[in-house]
Amino acid sequence: MSTVGRVIRCKAAVAWESGKPLSIEEVEVAPPQKNEVRIKILFTSLCHTDVYFWDAKGQNPMFPRILGHEAGGIVESVGEGVTDLEPGDHVLPIFTGECKECAHCLSEESNMCNLLRINTDRGEMIHDGKSRFSINGKPIYHFLGTSTFSEYTVVHVGQVAKINPDAPLDKVCVLSCGMSTGFGATVNVAKPKKGQSVAIFGLGAVGLAAAEGARVSGASRIIGVDLNPGRFEQAKKFGVTEFVNPKDHDKPVQEVIAEMTGGGVDRSVECTGSIQAMISAFECVHDGWGVAVLVGVPNKDDAFKTHPVNLLNERTLKGTFFGNYKPRTDIPAVVEKYMNKELELDKFITHSVPFSEINKAFELMLAGEGLRCVIRMDA
Amino acid sequence: MSTVGRVIRCKAAVAWESGKPLSIEEVEVAPPQKNEVRIKILFTSLCHTDVYFWDAKGQNPMFPRILGHEAGGIVESVGEGVTDLEPGDHVLPIFTGECKECAHCLSEESNMCNLLRINTDRGEMIHDGKSRFSINGKPIYHFLGTSTFSEYTVVHVGQVAKINPDAPLDKVCVLSCGMSTGFGATVNVAKPKKGQSVAIFGLGAVGLAAAEGARVSGASRIIGVDLNPGRFEQAKKFGVTEFVNPKDHDKPVQEVIAEMTGGGVDRSVECTGSIQAMISAFECVHDGWGVAVLVGVPNKDDAFKTHPVNLLNERTLKGTFFGNYKPRTDIPAVVEKYMNKELELDKFITHSVPFSEINKAFELMLAGEGLRCVIRMDA
Repeated sequence: MSTVGRVIRCKAAVAWESGKPLSIEEVEVAPPQKNEVRIKILFTSLCHTDVYFWDAKGQNPMFPRILGHEAGGIVESVGEGVTDLEPGDHVLPIFTGECKECAHCLSEESNMCNLLRINTDRGEMIHDGKSRFSINGKPIYHFLGTSTFSEYTVVHVGQVAKINPDAPLDKVCVLSCGMSTGFGATVNVAKPKKGQSVAIFGLGAVGLAAAEGARVSGASRIIGVDLNPGRFEQAKKFGVTEFVNPKDHDKPVQEVIAEMTGGGVDRSVECTGSIQAMISAFECVHDGWGVAVLVGVPNKDDAFKTHPVNLLNERTLKGTFFGNYKPRTDIPAVVEKYMNKELELDKFITHSVPFSEINKAFELMLAGEGLRCVIRMDA
Repeated sequence: MSTVGRVIRCKAAVAWESGKPLSIEEVEVAPPQKNEVRIKILFTSLCHTDVYFWDAKGQNPMFPRILGHEAGGIVESVGEGVTDLEPGDHVLPIFTGECKECAHCLSEESNMCNLLRINTDRGEMIHDGKSRFSINGKPIYHFLGTSTFSEYTVVHVGQVAKINPDAPLDKVCVLSCGMSTGFGATVNVAKPKKGQSVAIFGLGAVGLAAAEGARVSGASRIIGVDLNPGRFEQAKKFGVTEFVNPKDHDKPVQEVIAEMTGGGVDRSVECTGSIQAMISAFECVHDGWGVAVLVGVPNKDDAFKTHPVNLLNERTLKGTFFGNYKPRTDIPAVVEKYMNKELELDKFITHSVPFSEINKAFELMLAGEGLRCVIRMDA
């Protein structure tokens, strides 16, 4: 019997309160409304942002909630007005959207859609301000408009990238967020030229995706900066050629890098969110042509501070969001890069667990083990 | 009798001590040495930087000195090793150089030549550490390698732009510094697209040259920001369409501009050097695509400070030096823009005095009157 137009009952991992293990529950998933799509999630991976809002320290707590935003799935049904997706399409839900009509979507340069820009405080669908999830009629909050820790979810069509159906969803699901964020920061924003040097601050998953972007761009030197020396061995697999631990030096790391490179690196990408790392990432690029790109999300009260002469000496400082990719327009081509073996993704996926063991993915991330843990929804 | 290879005796305006009127003296100008060119200066104009180092407040005082760096002239003779210039060539001496061999000169992006980058503390020629100017054998310091307040001067070949001999030197002399700095900041660095909005901070000569760049680029709105309301009438001639005086508002000027423009201007160019203006110029550009360019030179102890989220929301912050122009490679083409009537220069030249009245040019600038005063060396 077709599920189209009907409520679907399925399993979801519900976060009932901050910091407590998720609980697999049977939930009701309402049919998609105007400009919405209902997606059967096949694979989802865990990103720091899920853990951050689950932990809800300093965040607006919003529970019960279904977290999850890196995922791959198949369209089950579409709501009124959806014309460019149909049941059976392979898709990646994305935590930020592309309405294709606002000033940002019409700009070649921006991907910060006015209508569907990331909103961590929103727990409902924008069409009617209601949740599509419930348990015995009691609504459960959405997260980032994606809520992929559920066998079925409802997403605004502007947050759905239609991809090549041949792409393995258990791999390309990680392009929903972190890998695209880091990779795009390098290839779309820092844009190193072949043979240039690139410094990467922070060798977690996003930083290593930025390093992958530098490798693909033909960077001659990729200098990894991290406070954890244990990360260097792994980073070598991602093309990082040298390692600097700020703890090993008495002078600021930007001076160490300037000495290593005859005045500074050509490009830098900051993936930690530490304000000190942001300042170092900026000040370590070469005068005349250096470009520093900020990716990591800072604390609310941080101030970026530098002597303006560092700017006047022809350095460029830019920030990026989701690697400057427009979700619907650009992400399908990133999937093709993986299919063409230009971009390597498999090395980012260090763990895999069945949906029933989703809390193990949280444990691994809290222990700092591995990069991405893929959760298999059918297992 | 040819002057080639001989000392030339001519008039120069010598600054004997800080803040005292220049004195027209007969000086000896030695022949050009290796990689040097001796130039007969026909027209020179006064720039704030001359006044700044003449006043020498907070600067390393270096007297007696021959100031001057915006000028046009004709090559009188060349030293050993100079192959791309010959006597009779029309040239603009430039305060910063292009050796064509260092990493900066070889980079497409930089104009900050390692060998000949601006050095305000150098008073001699780099070839032998000696001055080419003297009075009765007593050396007089050079300034910026140009010292154009002299009928003849000696300049390193890397600081000499060879231009179209049909170009009127009494006009294009202002391209030696200020006009190129402002114009290039907009057209080479901010790069507004046709129809975009541009805010210009500071409506002095450099800011108005930046506005001229916005006009030439087809900007739809050019918003001038200045604390002096008297500057708006003049600014209209340079394409400025709206005026904001920060003193007229209780809220920060970046918020005023964001309200005027539905979220921010597309581009901004900061030409005052005030740290508060730099911060406002950055924060007034639109998220997603806005680019802010810093031109004005700050105080030594200033700190540029902003919340990093302003960067992460996809704003770009860049600094520029001499409008990113390489002196020898690029300035001849800027002269051609004037010859083709793409770029207007005449409106910048508000005054003209004979060399004997050079101190009037200083008085006009100190009084804030006019934009550029051209000094006629033959008068």
